[in-house]
Amino acid sequence: MTGKIIGVGVGPGDPELLTLKALKVIREAKVIAYPSIETGESFARNIVKEFMSKDVLEIPIKIPMVESRFPSQLIYNSASDEIATHLKREVNVIVLCQGDPFFYGSFMYLFSRFAGKYPVEIIPGISSLNACSAVSQRPLCSRLESLSVIPGGMDDEAFLKQLEKEDAFAIMKVGRNIAKIKRLLEQKGMAKRAVYVSHATLPNQLVLPLAEAPETAPYFSMILVPSKDEYVIY
Amino acid sequence: MTGKIIGVGVGPGDPELLTLKALKVIREAKVIAYPSIETGESFARNIVKEFMSKDVLEIPIKIPMVESRFPSQLIYNSASDEIATHLKREVNVIVLCQGDPFFYGSFMYLFSRFAGKYPVEIIPGISSLNACSAVSQRPLCSRLESLSVIPGGMDDEAFLKQLEKEDAFAIMKVGRNIAKIKRLLEQKGMAKRAVYVSHATLPNQLVLPLAEAPETAPYFSMILVPSKDEYVIY
Repeated sequence: MTGKIIGVGVGPGDPELLTLKALKVIREAKVIAYPSIETGESFARNIVKEFMSKDVLEIPIKIPMVESRFPSQLIYNSASDEIATHLKREVNVIVLCQGDPFFYGSFMYLFSRFAGKYPVEIIPGISSLNACSAVSQRPLCSRLESLSVIPGGMDDEAFLKQLEKEDAFAIMKVGRNIAKIKRLLEQKGMAKRAVYVSHATLPNQLVLPLAEAPETAPYFSMILVPSKDEYVIY
Repeated sequence: MTGKIIGVGVGPGDPELLTLKALKVIREAKVIAYPSIETGESFARNIVKEFMSKDVLEIPIKIPMVESRFPSQLIYNSASDEIATHLKREVNVIVLCQGDPFFYGSFMYLFSRFAGKYPVEIIPGISSLNACSAVSQRPLCSRLESLSVIPGGMDDEAFLKQLEKEDAFAIMKVGRNIAKIKRLLEQKGMAKRAVYVSHATLPNQLVLPLAEAPETAPYFSMILVPSKDEYVIY
């Protein structure tokens, strides 16, 4: 018998978008791990801090905020060792994941270390895709339409290949790729119906036509390209 | 001043996957609309019925369960008229949406009738994509990989064009398209790493390698194709 590692999606930012199931396991948790910046500050923890028990043991996984951080194998190895000591003592370990654990989340790096060795549970969360679509009121696609989710950091050739398809697109992790993304969408005649969203569901949320988007975008930003102009209702 | 129409995502089936925000608006609701089959039975309503006020006014939107039902314009026109009478009396109307309202949901048909005319709010829900990924423990993609969401009903040519891309795929609305989907994935050498999921998060949930999937799939089923064989951990 060992404890279980539970990847918990905590949604895009608004604590009200936590699920009842996530709330329950967070309240009951004895050990909670989460990604953080080097100071220990954690976006995922901030979302749920009001629900955490006072005497919970915290494991911040401090990932340097530099582009080359993927995959920070040594940091994940060390965090995994610490998590494993609790699992071996039959204590469950909760891992907080902003958005959804398996939707471009760093939880992957822990999952790959524990899957098949310890019991793993995943509690899905509201992803940034659904959050951005909701706050910008953009129904992305319906019926027989496809949706492509593209990371903003893809190189030009691969990115343009994605845009060859028709229908709708969601471009994740816009950040410092925004100028490139604008250029490629303009090249494909898709820029006009694109919408820029940053910090969805948070007090500093921004929803703008792509043309009015800032030149420097934060990490938590997304560009949605609905399949048809008529889905763009201002 | 009018009431507001609120599209509320109620998640994939497990009532515990409702968000705190959805729970709040459902408990406070005076008028709740939802899609149902002709008998009035509703999957979305079943998820949240324990939270609905006893004296709530219900508007079942009865959509015949036939392939040609999209878009059942007359039924949505009539439901919209009924909803509008409440909005005009400054009463908010909640519309229950299984999964997420804007992720292939029928809420689109109401949204297109109300957007720009009445205040609309969207509360995102856990989508079937995130639910199926969680219960099958399949991290679909990460880092610089793309994800394509493809409706199972697409014709062969369009479907194969989608599969031309690399990375990960999620095939929605499998249902009676399963034989065709299997054939096309085999043709592309992708069948072996594909996983079949039906009724995710419900007591009758099934997670199977695609090869063992039933010949007749229910409407609520999905096929996930991770980007790499190594993401498939049994």
